[in-house]
Amino acid sequence: MPGEQPRIAGLIKLNTNENPYPPAPGVLKAVREAVDSRLRLYPNPTAQALRERLARLHRCSAENVIIGNGSDELLAMAVRTFAEPATGSKGASRHRVQYFHPSYSLYPVLAEAHGAVPHPVPLGKGFSIPTPTSLRRGGMWDFRAAVTFVTTPNAPSGRGFTTRELNALCKAHRGLLILDEAYVDFARENAAALALRHPHVMVARTFSKAYSLCFQRVGYLMGHPELIDALHRTRDSYNVNGLGQAAALATLDHLPYYRKNFRRICATRDRLTLALGRLGFKVLPSQANFLLAEPPGFEAEIWLERLRARKILVRWFRYPEVRQYLRITIGTEGEATALLKAVRAILAEG
Amino acid sequence: MPGEQPRIAGLIKLNTNENPYPPAPGVLKAVREAVDSRLRLYPNPTAQALRERLARLHRCSAENVIIGNGSDELLAMAVRTFAEPATGSKGASRHRVQYFHPSYSLYPVLAEAHGAVPHPVPLGKGFSIPTPTSLRRGGMWDFRAAVTFVTTPNAPSGRGFTTRELNALCKAHRGLLILDEAYVDFARENAAALALRHPHVMVARTFSKAYSLCFQRVGYLMGHPELIDALHRTRDSYNVNGLGQAAALATLDHLPYYRKNFRRICATRDRLTLALGRLGFKVLPSQANFLLAEPPGFEAEIWLERLRARKILVRWFRYPEVRQYLRITIGTEGEATALLKAVRAILAEG
Repeated sequence: MPGEQPRIAGLIKLNTNENPYPPAPGVLKAVREAVDSRLRLYPNPTAQALRERLARLHRCSAENVIIGNGSDELLAMAVRTFAEPATGSKGASRHRVQYFHPSYSLYPVLAEAHGAVPHPVPLGKGFSIPTPTSLRRGGMWDFRAAVTFVTTPNAPSGRGFTTRELNALCKAHRGLLILDEAYVDFARENAAALALRHPHVMVARTFSKAYSLCFQRVGYLMGHPELIDALHRTRDSYNVNGLGQAAALATLDHLPYYRKNFRRICATRDRLTLALGRLGFKVLPSQANFLLAEPPGFEAEIWLERLRARKILVRWFRYPEVRQYLRITIGTEGEATALLKAVRAILAEG
Repeated sequence: MPGEQPRIAGLIKLNTNENPYPPAPGVLKAVREAVDSRLRLYPNPTAQALRERLARLHRCSAENVIIGNGSDELLAMAVRTFAEPATGSKGASRHRVQYFHPSYSLYPVLAEAHGAVPHPVPLGKGFSIPTPTSLRRGGMWDFRAAVTFVTTPNAPSGRGFTTRELNALCKAHRGLLILDEAYVDFARENAAALALRHPHVMVARTFSKAYSLCFQRVGYLMGHPELIDALHRTRDSYNVNGLGQAAALATLDHLPYYRKNFRRICATRDRLTLALGRLGFKVLPSQANFLLAEPPGFEAEIWLERLRARKILVRWFRYPEVRQYLRITIGTEGEATALLKAVRAILAEG
């Protein structure tokens, strides 16, 4: 499969938040074993076995779960299903796709592709989530926006939000609220319960990052059966490929393997946070598999280039709120060591 | 992977136009070999290697090709990209999704999901394609409809259209015209050249049916780079799973294997057409991997049930134009023999 990764020997890729560890051997085995004459047949249209399995995991019903071609597809479907394209009055709630800024850069893209209205609202100081009271006072938050996305833990900052904070927002909010938990397996808390408690709240998850399955495209949304049902009506008939379904199902048989990897990644993250701090970086506390860090000495964009020259790819965003930062995916322990070595060398060069 | 097929031992499944033959052994091998630690990484976002390979096959440029999560995803994207949801004047061309009736039942579903207006126009006698002159005279055809789909060969009739007929329509038509060639590998002619000749014409293809890859979800559209580019802007970032890309690429290395299967399926189809004809069925001449056949003696819906009782699944559509017919997928030679045996038994029972 050429093309999906830059083909530079020895490159260390810390730019797209992929998991440095491969899927469990048992998952690879299960996927290989599924590669036979059944490829000629259509996959299960709703990924029913996976829905049922996830329902057991989350102690809910299969009717609370919809599977997507990655969670991105589900976020796009939610915008198309629940927000109305704006022709006249662009200020109306029914056209609004609301999200905190900064967060996942896809949300405004989805809004615009659908003809809806992107409605960013700034996060609080230190990328904190504003309380309902301060959102009311601020006057920008639309409690009735057609669709609202909250990335939790936040990307690109890595900041985690407590279920208590999120529940307060859910209780005050009236429109559809989607808690996008793409990175939640690296966090201290998750808010899955809120999707089952509040009929206007959904939680998005993905097998891509925590479960090392980016290649396979499997994500899911949990929420009230009426919301799930509305999404099913706009879903492509066979939106989730069969081997992706097989891989995700097998993954759920090997959760201890993945939980061990989460602990390794969190340990590497915490070590890197400390070590970069000692080298003069201002590192935000992260509950995700990446760090947002303000490098010392010269501008983040220059660091991007100088790390790239040493075959280390990290991410830099141009927009004002984060342009002084680098976003660094947590790789293996060895990659963290290589990163620290490169950082020291760059600092020594001055 | 449970669930995707009815689990009845000995069932003969002639209801969803799947290919009875498995993918080439070399394709299965290539997919199995791609199942390794790379699953943790994102796939190539545009399936670039596959685009380039298809461009070589069709003697065009990669910019003429977009890959989808099955061709269904691309048909949905085309509706969303090129048709405007109707709020006021529902009769305007820019809201219309036009198609011949009967044809693929997905088109009106896509139109309605997007808030556009389904605009069916009857096929001619014997499911023939009307000439531009007769379309003008009929007054129903909208030559400027936002999106027009033409299933060629037609489903569910199996009727093939010549490139000459299709070219005449392309020349007279002004809106975007998508020739949906899902079954074209079983036909005498294909119209790929028209997508490269006319800037308002696209051709849709799929790896599902002819290439035995339903499970993997890979299809493509060919057309003018400006149309392709507009579709790319509404595409999910990673819409085609990596193993699907690998499978489709490997498939293009084994075309002689598949062409041999096309010939086998066409031979079975032609034998079955004759044999069913002798048993009193009125079988439409088919250029696809299925037959539309009017059974003798009693109603098609009864035949559906009586064949099902003999563990043979075929398809029956309730709508008036075809409710007297059964649609029968062409399986293996053995499955055709079993079907004929069941038909004879049902006729003998009376």
